Formats: sequence, structure tokens, C-alpha cells
Amino acid sequence: MIDTSSHEPKTDQVDELRDSILKTKAGALPSLIIGIGGGSAMDISKAVSIMLTNEGSSRLYQGWDLVKNPPIPKMGIPTLSGSGTEASRTAVLSSEEKKYGINSDQSMFDLVMMDPDLLENVPEDQKFFTGMDCYIHDVEASEGSFINAFGKSYAEQSLGLCTKVFLKQGGTNDDLMVASYLGGASVTNSEAGVVHAMSYGISLVLGYRHAIANCIVFRQLEEYYPKHVPVFMKMLELNNIILPDGVTKNVTDKEISLMIKMTYRMARPLTSALGENWKNILTEKKTEDLYKKM
Amino acid sequence: MIDTSSHEPKTDQVDELRDSILKTKAGALPSLIIGIGGGSAMDISKAVSIMLTNEGSSRLYQGWDLVKNPPIPKMGIPTLSGSGTEASRTAVLSSEEKKYGINSDQSMFDLVMMDPDLLENVPEDQKFFTGMDCYIHDVEASEGSFINAFGKSYAEQSLGLCTKVFLKQGGTNDDLMVASYLGGASVTNSEAGVVHAMSYGISLVLGYRHAIANCIVFRQLEEYYPKHVPVFMKMLELNNIILPDGVTKNVTDKEISLMIKMTYRMARPLTSALGENWKNILTEKKTEDLYKKM
Repeated sequence: MIDTSSHEPKTDQVDELRDSILKTKAGALPSLIIGIGGGSAMDISKAVSIMLTNEGSSRLYQGWDLVKNPPIPKMGIPTLSGSGTEASRTAVLSSEEKKYGINSDQSMFDLVMMDPDLLENVPEDQKFFTGMDCYIHDVEASEGSFINAFGKSYAEQSLGLCTKVFLKQGGTNDDLMVASYLGGASVTNSEAGVVHAMSYGISLVLGYRHAIANCIVFRQLEEYYPKHVPVFMKMLELNNIILPDGVTKNVTDKEISLMIKMTYRMARPLTSALGENWKNILTEKKTEDLYKKM
Repeated sequence: MIDTSSHEPKTDQVDELRDSILKTKAGALPSLIIGIGGGSAMDISKAVSIMLTNEGSSRLYQGWDLVKNPPIPKMGIPTLSGSGTEASRTAVLSSEEKKYGINSDQSMFDLVMMDPDLLENVPEDQKFFTGMDCYIHDVEASEGSFINAFGKSYAEQSLGLCTKVFLKQGGTNDDLMVASYLGGASVTNSEAGVVHAMSYGISLVLGYRHAIANCIVFRQLEEYYPKHVPVFMKMLELNNIILPDGVTKNVTDKEISLMIKMTYRMARPLTSALGENWKNILTEKKTEDLYKKM
């Protein structure tokens, strides 16, 4: 049992887990890795399945298509819906200096078991924040230029289901579970956008969990997502969610520059969202100003 | 190259193809089967991939979950959109006495390549009929009781795309290709219904290709699909399609009884569509009357 409740999954955690499995099994490989839990537990299971057959630290594989050897087969059982990791080709890990996914076909689960009954006892605010990860995937995927016809369909359907659930139009746990899966599939057929590019900075430096960090960022990005931020504000209200305010008020200059550096590493999502000239739109100054509003 | 233009795929054809591959390769197995074409070519490739590792005639595997050994890996490249076989767990074959799918996880493609440019030169009427196979999958899946939350989402999305294409609301080949895939996925997460149960009888006895047989049947089933048959009639009109009339006017008593028998073999789709008591709703007499209207 890996405790993922207090922080985002870390590369060190994955490396240690891999080493301990190999030690316990005296070098023999397990035949299946099963990830049960929310996005963090699932991402750790994905990363461990890869690291059991690939040398060195998991840090070496954060990026696009860097995995060399086929992983151990893996199965995912989500107990929270929103991250979409059950359908995506990434396993997001943080190290000291960056938060970045192992983006690879090798990160895909071989098998996923989805049972909406597992969502029964999720606290409402956790369900909301995780669900917003999905909503934001749909928004970023559908507004991004990297999208294909599949991504469009998945994003459109997932957006509709999220709206049903979080605008309280009769959406069920079944709807939320399907929304999460399709949201993951939509990002896989497109890219994330400005929200993820900035939320990684918030998580890396301030330690906020991914889904909350997304919400903190999304609220300030109406200029990039004018159709959807107002709907999100309505969702916050209807679900009685109060977002943390002034989270960046005590950050040091060094921290803010690490946050900007982190955002600037996210060239793919930012290109999909803002075009090749994204650095002229989301300048360092602009990024800093946005962070300081959060 | 297998010519599938003149008739539905047959069990004998699959068996012969399997035997000739084994003979050519002196018993060695190919490492990949590639199916390029419309639904028939794709279904033949699926069936051959299974029959290369399973003994006897393909007739023995028509039904639900009868395949014993894992098949040869297979890849599908659709050049027509609608059948949804690129996403489905069936390979539909006809023998003398029945038309029935090899329904099995082993019928799923391992890899699918979808390129909408391949639809460029498809004649309009063929595109229409094949597209209606998709529309009808969506209708049957969404109206059937066997549906789950995934099936609902896929069917809803696919219905919207088909409507865009065939009610001439700006749908593209990209839309049609995605619709077909999602239509296949919707039936996989639900079941077919009365249209497929009756169209198999038309194809088996009168030799009509599947997609046209579906249309001939669907037109007469407004009582079971009251929301969708009127939309279908509108699609026929907008696309200048004239369906064959009086196709059953010369059938013999023996033929009509084979058609009814074929329909009655389709217990799963008919249960999903009409409930456990489907035989009391779609009685033999009723089935005969419907066939005679076609």
C-alpha cells in the first residue's frame, strides 16, 4: 500500500518502490502490476511497471517517448474519477526541479476495470476537484490546435457529462466515470493547454495537489478560455467550493522563477494552446503576473 | 486479394483461405494479418487470424465466446466507414444455414489505422448504405436494455456525427470515420436489435449485402424505433437514395421459414431490444408479416 494522499507522486518514490520489488522477488519480475486508487496511485503503478524493465532513475524517462523496453503488464482500477489516467499515455511524476509525465505508449494500461460503485464514498469536494481535472482536460483538448477528430468527439462527450454532473443536471457516478475516461482519451488525441502548463508550477513549488492546482490556475485564465471559465465559476458556486486565495503571496523570487521555468518547459501544451509563438503571448512577465494573482 | 464485392463473407471462404495460407507457408504461421477494405474484408481478416490457431471449420466458432486459442495478431485498415468492425468484437460470417458472428474478444483488432483520405473515392450510395449500418448500430445500441454508460456515450456521439453527415449539416469524412468506430464501440457495449435480427434473414436468403439489407428492414420498423425511422426516411430523401422494393415478393414458404428461423436465432439482440418475452412481441406470424412488407 502506497500512501498518495499527502503529496504528488515522486520519481524517488517510484525508484524506491521498483528497487524494493526487485529485492523482495530476488530480481524476478512480477507478472502484473495493479494500480488501485486515484490518479496518483494509478500513475505510480504505471511508472513502476515501466521502471521494472528500464534502467536507471524514472527521472530519465520524464518527457516524450523516452521509454526503451516494454513494461510489465499493468491493470488500473480507478477509485476516483477525473484524472483520466486510466485512458492516457502519461504517468506524471515530480522530482526536485520538475513535474513532468512519462509520455509514452508504454504508459497505457493493458486492462482497466471501471466500477462506479467505487466512487460512492468519495467526499464531495474531492469528487469536485478531481472532476475538474477532467473538465479542464476537455476544455484544453478541444481548444487546442493539436486535436484530431477522435479527440474532438471524446472531449465534446466528456464536457457534456461533466456539465451534467457539476451543473447538477442529474449526472451520476456512471457519467463521471465515463467522462474521466473520455477526458483522458481526448487529451491523448490532442494536448493539455495553459492550465496544465501553469498548474505544474503551483504543484511543484507550493505542493498543491494537481486537481486543486488546476482549479487555482483555471480561475485566472478567462482570457485564454473565455467560454469555459464562466461555466467553471458557476460550478464552484453550485457545489459550494471555496478555492484557496492568495496562494502565491509569500513566494520568493527564486520560487517564482522556478514556477515560470516549469511553465516554460511545457512547450507542447503551450504550442497547442497558443501557437508556435506562445512565448510572445505568454511572456515571462505575463506568466509571473498571472501567478501572482493566484 | 480477396474479392468481397459480390457477396457476404462466408465460412467456406475463411476456411479455404486459412488452408491456403498454411499450405503456402508449409504450416508456419504468419506473424500478422492485415485486413484492408470494407466490413467484409475486415471481418474475413479477423476470422482468418482466429482460424489459423483454432481447429476445424470457422462454422464451429460462430456464436458467443467459443474461440479457444489466441489468434494471430491482426491489424485493420478501413476503406469504408460504417460497419464499426474496426472497433467491435465480432466477425460476421454466413454459411448455408445461418449468418452469425464469431463474437469473442479474440475478434478485436490489435491495431487499427484510420485515414479518412481512404474514403475520398467511395461512391455516394455505398457511403450512404455503409454509413447507415453505423446509424442503425447507434439506434439499436442506445435503445437496447443491454447498454452500459460507455455504450450510451459512444452511441450518442456517433448518432450526432451520422446526423451531421447524412442530414447534410456539414459532416466530413473525418466525422464519418469516427462515427463508425464509436458505433462499433457502442454495440460492443450494448447489443444490436430488431434491425440486425431481421436483416440477417434478408442477407442469408436473398443475398443482399448487409448494409442494404439493414436499410430494407429498418424502413419497416417504425413501431420499434419511432424516434429514428422518420430521421432515416429524411436521410434517404436528402441523399437521393431509392431502396429496393418488394424484395420478398417471390420468396417460397421454405425460404420465409428459413428467414424467420434466422431471426429467432438472434435471441441476444432481440432480448436487448424487446425484453425476455421477445417471442411474444415479435411472434413468428409478426416476423413473417414484416418480412412480407419488405
